[in-house]
Amino acid sequence: MKRRALLAPAAALLATRGLAGCATPAVAPAGTGDLGVVIQRARGALAIVNTSSRTLLAEVPGLGDLSHASVVFSRDGANAFVFGRDGALTRVNLLAQRIEARVQQAGNSIGGAICADGTLVAAQNYAPGGIKVFDARTLALVADIPAYQMAASHEPERRAAPSSGGATPEGAGAEGAGGRPRSRVVGLVDLPGRRFAYALFDADAICIADLSDPARPQVTRFDGIGRQPYDALLTPDGRHYIAGLFGEDGLALIDLWQAEPKARRILAGYGRGEQPLPVYKMPHLRGWAVAGRHAYLPAIGRHEVLVVDTQSWQEVGRIAVAGQPVFVIARPDARQVWVNFALPDYHRVQVIDTLEQRVVRTLEPGRAVLHMEFTPRAEAVWLSARDDHRVLVLDTQSFATLASLPVDSPSGIFFTARAARMGF
Amino acid sequence: MKRRALLAPAAALLATRGLAGCATPAVAPAGTGDLGVVIQRARGALAIVNTSSRTLLAEVPGLGDLSHASVVFSRDGANAFVFGRDGALTRVNLLAQRIEARVQQAGNSIGGAICADGTLVAAQNYAPGGIKVFDARTLALVADIPAYQMAASHEPERRAAPSSGGATPEGAGAEGAGGRPRSRVVGLVDLPGRRFAYALFDADAICIADLSDPARPQVTRFDGIGRQPYDALLTPDGRHYIAGLFGEDGLALIDLWQAEPKARRILAGYGRGEQPLPVYKMPHLRGWAVAGRHAYLPAIGRHEVLVVDTQSWQEVGRIAVAGQPVFVIARPDARQVWVNFALPDYHRVQVIDTLEQRVVRTLEPGRAVLHMEFTPRAEAVWLSARDDHRVLVLDTQSFATLASLPVDSPSGIFFTARAARMGF
Repeated sequence: MKRRALLAPAAALLATRGLAGCATPAVAPAGTGDLGVVIQRARGALAIVNTSSRTLLAEVPGLGDLSHASVVFSRDGANAFVFGRDGALTRVNLLAQRIEARVQQAGNSIGGAICADGTLVAAQNYAPGGIKVFDARTLALVADIPAYQMAASHEPERRAAPSSGGATPEGAGAEGAGGRPRSRVVGLVDLPGRRFAYALFDADAICIADLSDPARPQVTRFDGIGRQPYDALLTPDGRHYIAGLFGEDGLALIDLWQAEPKARRILAGYGRGEQPLPVYKMPHLRGWAVAGRHAYLPAIGRHEVLVVDTQSWQEVGRIAVAGQPVFVIARPDARQVWVNFALPDYHRVQVIDTLEQRVVRTLEPGRAVLHMEFTPRAEAVWLSARDDHRVLVLDTQSFATLASLPVDSPSGIFFTARAARMGF
Repeated sequence: MKRRALLAPAAALLATRGLAGCATPAVAPAGTGDLGVVIQRARGALAIVNTSSRTLLAEVPGLGDLSHASVVFSRDGANAFVFGRDGALTRVNLLAQRIEARVQQAGNSIGGAICADGTLVAAQNYAPGGIKVFDARTLALVADIPAYQMAASHEPERRAAPSSGGATPEGAGAEGAGGRPRSRVVGLVDLPGRRFAYALFDADAICIADLSDPARPQVTRFDGIGRQPYDALLTPDGRHYIAGLFGEDGLALIDLWQAEPKARRILAGYGRGEQPLPVYKMPHLRGWAVAGRHAYLPAIGRHEVLVVDTQSWQEVGRIAVAGQPVFVIARPDARQVWVNFALPDYHRVQVIDTLEQRVVRTLEPGRAVLHMEFTPRAEAVWLSARDDHRVLVLDTQSFATLASLPVDSPSGIFFTARAARMGF
């Protein structure tokens, strides 16, 4: 990144904030609703961006291994919580443009979530497998909830046999209790009411941790949900938690609104199939897949996007696309779905019109398009073109390029508006 | 309002922002994602609130006649645009806690909107009837678009007969052209792409103003949509614009996603009926009526909430409630719908469970409950109890009172998260 391009807006912002000196700021203080961050993996840094002026504001280095990093935001939008692959959890203040807290919380981590009231941040860990929950203000550890490969068999409260997909309370206490081996955790999302849902890759299970009383987390476990859940999504209404399965076809769904939630299998045809195709990159699942009454899911290994009815959870269509889809993301107004691709097609991006249910535009915005993020009211989309070292801002109506910002090897893009959405 | 209760948090905020003095702030600067305002009509003032700490931060006076006032927010969340009944448009900076710009733009006004990219703010006016569009930064007038009772008849581009509900380009130029009388404007909402939709009470029409080029607004008018549209809503996806009709039963709907949008009538049974009941307060319509696949509409004059399928736009149920509903607002996750009432039942609030389609809780939180606003991730709801001079914060899961704040005659409550939503 060119330092000059970066420093001018950063200085302007500091002046705006009134942090640069003693004088009453001449310019009105600005808010955080239009800020965001771009992951710069190779530099272990974040670029802070403004989506109104479409500018780079600052770079914050010192974040360690940011491969597969993800970010959530504080309720006020001023703080980004960065989950690094190396197990570090870092809080970056976007206004001060600096790291304000950092803990090395695990050896290998793959994302996290923040609860609705903003008090608790949870990290999902591969090693040691489990989730850890932190005070969002101090990053002090609040709860350490290990995930085991085998469900505890001694709890008297067990409500359903593991094989039925029913719920079981899970011992959340002593680490390594009973010598059970740990499971990697994936698909962590926030649920209403200081709860988190997540899936256990090595245990074929889904767990819900309730931290209403943070000192006594209550974990409910659903076993036998299907082999090797590898990622999950929460529908935007917080009702359905859906885990993709790596070890077999289909997905596992829990309707969280039911009094006695149960896991069930949907979309038996979804997956790699009986004769697995080479999969260049496992697609990601998140709540952005839902556009109106349909979910748009990346087919695994196939050049297709599946259209799923969210009432019946049946497949109702397939749309041919230009490669193996990685991110299939609904524009926030649900009128379009944008798709990027795995190697060798990741110079392309396609736009599906949800009314016509077909691809209406194929774009080639740059080399190695790794991620896309929409502005909250859908007028623009930001794209990372890693090998061009550019972040591009496109008008979602005209497809015109509104800005092209120099960023060193950009990958994930995250805007503060995520703070107002569940399951992000 | 007690000044003491107010001043302590305000001072803390000023310190936080680094505006109170020269020193580098000891506390990290805070964002605007968790701010909001409460209208204090009797004082002509706004109370600024924080939804994380559930506290009052400051009072901003000098806003004039705030009866029926409404508020939209800048993209960054730092600025509230306040539309006063007296035709004033005021921009209040929530961080500086002061008025920064104010124009007396009409004689009688009833609300406004801000476009998705945040550059334009529009006010809908009763007198003189029409909309005015302002630069969001300076409040300089960008476009003055009068609304006439009769459609211009000379435009050669007319695409459909007015009686069919088809669209007609409307002359947006000279004020009073042809001596046509003006129409009051209602139901103004932002549409994607620097467009605004609104309805003409005195012209039985809906207009869409496209300000892609602010110097040359293009207005498309749909005539013959039904008698006396009095308010309107945009569905959260920006697809359907729906106007309620005061002069007859039914609503007018336009599917904005169609290549050639047309107005059509839906819900012939919605309204006051053939033998009109006394209506103590006309209910408000906004996008908050939509919860998942259903819209929940306040019946007019009846103690009922109508449930409408948003695919077919047919009524699919009615739910008996404790009075004449005024606001029927879906919790952002769509699990609940909260209802308040007109006189004499406005000490009650009811909660509808959308899964069970029935009232699950009747609350009596205070006297004269005029408005409700949910936090964006649905964990809490803020209520104005005007005659108790209290704003109450309730947990939406347990219904426990989380906070009770002293506010002088509070009415409308508006949180900055609205900046990220269409049609708000």
